[in-house]
Amino acid sequence: MVASAELLRTLYTAVLSDVMDEMGYPNQACRPFMRPLDETTSFVGRARTGLYSNAYSVLEGENPYELEIRLIDDLKPGDVPVFACGGPTHRMAPWGELLTTAAMARGAVACVTDGLVRDVRHIRALKFPVFHGGIGPLDSKGRCRMIEMDRTIECGGVMISAGDTIFGDVDGVVVIPQAIADEVFRRALDKAARETHTRDELRAGRLLIEVYEKYGVL
Amino acid sequence: MVASAELLRTLYTAVLSDVMDEMGYPNQACRPFMRPLDETTSFVGRARTGLYSNAYSVLEGENPYELEIRLIDDLKPGDVPVFACGGPTHRMAPWGELLTTAAMARGAVACVTDGLVRDVRHIRALKFPVFHGGIGPLDSKGRCRMIEMDRTIECGGVMISAGDTIFGDVDGVVVIPQAIADEVFRRALDKAARETHTRDELRAGRLLIEVYEKYGVL
Amino acid sequence: MVASAELLRTLYTAVLSDVMDEMGYPNQACRPFMRPLDETTSFVGRARTGLYSNAYSVLEGENPYELEIRLIDDLKPGDVPVFACGGPTHRMAPWGELLTTAAMARGAVACVTDGLVRDVRHIRALKFPVFHGGIGPLDSKGRCRMIEMDRTIECGGVMISAGDTIFGDVDGVVVIPQAIADEVFRRALDKAARETHTRDELRAGRLLIEVYEKYGVL
Amino acid sequence: MVASAELLRTLYTAVLSDVMDEMGYPNQACRPFMRPLDETTSFVGRARTGLYSNAYSVLEGENPYELEIRLIDDLKPGDVPVFACGGPTHRMAPWGELLTTAAMARGAVACVTDGLVRDVRHIRALKFPVFHGGIGPLDSKGRCRMIEMDRTIECGGVMISAGDTIFGDVDGVVVIPQAIADEVFRRALDKAARETHTRDELRAGRLLIEVYEKYGVL
Amino acid sequence: MVASAELLRTLYTAVLSDVMDEMGYPNQACRPFMRPLDETTSFVGRARTGLYSNAYSVLEGENPYELEIRLIDDLKPGDVPVFACGGPTHRMAPWGELLTTAAMARGAVACVTDGLVRDVRHIRALKFPVFHGGIGPLDSKGRCRMIEMDRTIECGGVMISAGDTIFGDVDGVVVIPQAIADEVFRRALDKAARETHTRDELRAGRLLIEVYEKYGVL
Amino acid sequence: MVASAELLRTLYTAVLSDVMDEMGYPNQACRPFMRPLDETTSFVGRARTGLYSNAYSVLEGENPYELEIRLIDDLKPGDVPVFACGGPTHRMAPWGELLTTAAMARGAVACVTDGLVRDVRHIRALKFPVFHGGIGPLDSKGRCRMIEMDRTIECGGVMISAGDTIFGDVDGVVVIPQAIADEVFRRALDKAARETHTRDELRAGRLLIEVYEKYGVL
Repeated sequence: MVASAELLRTLYTAVLSDVMDEMGYPNQACRPFMRPLDETTSFVGRARTGLYSNAYSVLEGENPYELEIRLIDDLKPGDVPVFACGGPTHRMAPWGELLTTAAMARGAVACVTDGLVRDVRHIRALKFPVFHGGIGPLDSKGRCRMIEMDRTIECGGVMISAGDTIFGDVDGVVVIPQAIADEVFRRALDKAARETHTRDELRAGRLLIEVYEKYGVL
Repeated sequence: MVASAELLRTLYTAVLSDVMDEMGYPNQACRPFMRPLDETTSFVGRARTGLYSNAYSVLEGENPYELEIRLIDDLKPGDVPVFACGGPTHRMAPWGELLTTAAMARGAVACVTDGLVRDVRHIRALKFPVFHGGIGPLDSKGRCRMIEMDRTIECGGVMISAGDTIFGDVDGVVVIPQAIADEVFRRALDKAARETHTRDELRAGRLLIEVYEKYGVL
Repeated sequence: MVASAELLRTLYTAVLSDVMDEMGYPNQACRPFMRPLDETTSFVGRARTGLYSNAYSVLEGENPYELEIRLIDDLKPGDVPVFACGGPTHRMAPWGELLTTAAMARGAVACVTDGLVRDVRHIRALKFPVFHGGIGPLDSKGRCRMIEMDRTIECGGVMISAGDTIFGDVDGVVVIPQAIADEVFRRALDKAARETHTRDELRAGRLLIEVYEKYGVL
Repeated sequence: MVASAELLRTLYTAVLSDVMDEMGYPNQACRPFMRPLDETTSFVGRARTGLYSNAYSVLEGENPYELEIRLIDDLKPGDVPVFACGGPTHRMAPWGELLTTAAMARGAVACVTDGLVRDVRHIRALKFPVFHGGIGPLDSKGRCRMIEMDRTIECGGVMISAGDTIFGDVDGVVVIPQAIADEVFRRALDKAARETHTRDELRAGRLLIEVYEKYGVL
Repeated sequence: MVASAELLRTLYTAVLSDVMDEMGYPNQACRPFMRPLDETTSFVGRARTGLYSNAYSVLEGENPYELEIRLIDDLKPGDVPVFACGGPTHRMAPWGELLTTAAMARGAVACVTDGLVRDVRHIRALKFPVFHGGIGPLDSKGRCRMIEMDRTIECGGVMISAGDTIFGDVDGVVVIPQAIADEVFRRALDKAARETHTRDELRAGRLLIEVYEKYGVL
Repeated sequence: MVASAELLRTLYTAVLSDVMDEMGYPNQACRPFMRPLDETTSFVGRARTGLYSNAYSVLEGENPYELEIRLIDDLKPGDVPVFACGGPTHRMAPWGELLTTAAMARGAVACVTDGLVRDVRHIRALKFPVFHGGIGPLDSKGRCRMIEMDRTIECGGVMISAGDTIFGDVDGVVVIPQAIADEVFRRALDKAARETHTRDELRAGRLLIEVYEKYGVL
């Protein structure tokens, strides 16, 4: 596989999405409500999945962060925690500064969640890419709880398994299933190289119909 | 009509909206979910309308961009493509860098859509004003399709016909029906000139009730 | 009570929310759709509440801004007008530049609303903190109207009474009921001081589980 | 005007909606979430409008039902109280058995609201037509409050003024502005008489295209 | 406590809701989207709570119904399983004929859920009261899973603990916290007895204002 | 294939959904907002698909019903028109009495749409099964328009192609792709026969866990 830095310099979510469309995978882009905390950040990494459920109580002696802690402490360099909250409901607040700091210490390259994030000033200062479903000051304790780790989840409308490749930039987040990752990247690098022609001819003032008929794509 | 550059320097969506309220046109502002890609951009131009429908298949030999290409290639200087997607659903992704490049080459001054836009880094670099319903990496192919061109549409909750004037700034987008455009601009220039008084007196510390009783408006 | 400037320098909505969670007040943070106009602003002040209703007509001789004007003209230094619109519906547009100017002249320190705001370029230039439910060019006249002043309201999902303390920063807005304000600030200052340890140990590379077991909190 | 009983026997909301479409009034049908409590009931009457606002407190000595009582006690035979709640939110619960009983005693012929209704078993037993936005056990006290009486409102997406004619049956509710009521009923009676032909030919097995070409309508 | 049959004959959700409003418990009625499968059924019983989470996979050897089976098999006469699904999302399908049959065999008197139910023809034939968030043919397996039993949950917007009394009829569902149940029923029986007067006087044609001034309530 | 009457007597949407779940087709049930007009009706037939788009104008000489008429007139015995409106928005009103009458004359066995239906009293009298997204008095003319016929669509969240089998009963609607229809029906008939055992044992009072362990299913 091409190095991450190279992929990030050359590729982008739009070309990856187009390539997966062609290959018969049209549902690999997270819904548009999920946005980067910092629009200048991008990332590519390996998904580590966590499923969150609503929670309404914390029992005596119970550690409400148990599974969350286990997943974060087990992160490997290049991992991306992906926390599925079933959408941006106001109880689902899984991410903040402390998890950011701990994840960075393990070598994680980003966090993706359809839930809420807090401490955003500190996270932005750390330049850690976080793609989220909303911003709020809430703690997860007594509101939600990770109940599954590294199993298949749905986040922002996309099915994601641990080990899938996940890529994010200012246009959003795409998920590349493990089994097709090599082909997706090969095709995308190829397509990205060719796209410059279309753009250049359009800039030169050619009509869209001429360019479309010449290259057969837009 | 006053030149566009002059209108952009002097007017703004709020005063245009107020003037149309007074004239009995209260529903001319697109819903607040439609936002500028770049909050420093503004525009005024002539609407060229496209209606989008969901699409779920592309037949052999079919050009899914047919009408879209026709509209873009037919843009005249000062035109604003307005693409109606029925709201920010995740399938509706009509705009991106290539259409931006092609539209700029024809002299278009902005794009307005209640659907999604992609390639936003490049579009921002081009300083082309795009007012949109959301951001995502998706192509329109196999997801949606322009089915009508230059007919009356509804975009962001406002009815728009080809030839209407459309104005956008950081506060949003307003649509000025062709038949009343001259009067709207005349009244708005007049009202904008007078508004400074109210503001100045409030800054000087006068009570709101005094200012309201003196000028009869807020 | 500690001075506002000191509170703003030391505290933040997340720690205030955590402390109120501990004290049995879990529903004190406005919903995440409410965002600051300018993410670098923050504020703490005393709530002055206004309840808005839809309006569909303005009768001859009626002043549609009556109660709004009365509340703004009655603002005291340190006050925060909190305008409850029942959520970010497109008719609810209570705030703009003129109210900002008038409120600043009285010494108000921010505005909080779950409705819409306009004239955002001017408001940002004035550096007045506005936390809002959306941006749009509309006037309130003929769309909505303040019908109650200084009574208990719900704004962004939180019950707020006149006299409650309200605090906003980039993570959102929290409401601190008057009766518990002293204890909340005392606890929050204490907790904020201790949080540095957790963060420092995580930065040094310790596992989350070790830090959690040592401090009993995250 | 034709007698109500005759109108109810001959006309229906679909034909009234079609006629108003033809006359350039396409937005006269309440949104489909508004349904009859009893699908066998229908009504035609004169709208008496009430606007509701959220309420969060009841002050000492305040009568929270003041305007509501005034409107109900002022109902005339043939009147239809139309209570606008801004949609089916769970706080808006304006109607129940007592208001039904009082309204029937004054000669009212139906109630229309986009808010909630309770005591539905008793209301159904009374055969009083109620078209509503939902069912729930809540009282309005401390949740919502009528703040305007007999002014123009929006209910279920339609603008309604006191004195407009309102018609409801199993297909929904349509509002007929006072100024066009006579023409609407004349055209509708005419159209209803002619519609039988189309239906009869279709039942006899003719193709839709033949019937459409013969009558020019569907 | 008064016998259930007596309570069901004399009381109803509206009077219970009113009494809890007076006692300072205004949020005890489930949201109006929750409706009875059969509007002629009503029930009162003891809540047994289950919390559901989305699920996207079933592992080899895993029993996806484990906790659900445990709760159903542990039901006691008079119990009401209350299954919290976080609202009527299409994945949440916890109830059907088999659970109905098993619950009836244990003596349960109803089921309450904000999720979906299937096999509704059979359930109606059994006359078992089910109050639900929607109807659909789906199995829960691979879509959702009970993850907590007999802990505090939120169902249809109301917090419910195991042991709370829950009451349902055609107007909806109300939850009566265990600690106040005796007082609620005592007050409600008293209030229900007095309500006849108001109704009788209104039927006799008295004005609402007269009745309100005489009894001080509506 | 087994005769339709036999399938309708023996099968039901829940067992068909379960069988398709097992075969790896979990997304074949329309969303629960789609309900039968008459809960006693059920049907099985061959899908004939129509895609609807919003429409805002009717041009001089244009037949707004063109494609709709063509599809209805082309229906064969056993066909089910399936009209995709992109959800229950208030503009999408494709079905009513005339289309019902015309479709019955051609031998169609049901209509399925996620849009609105009108003339429901007459349709119910005809005992024609209609599964719909809502009820309203509106005509489609000037509001929506069929733009594609017999191509793949999405209706109520399910992808449907012309020729797929579609089955509806009181629990909802399921879509059986053409390629797997034979196996689905074979498996479903088999499973339906075995389900009686589970039910009988539960009725006899056995615990759910015993039944689950014996049969391995619920």
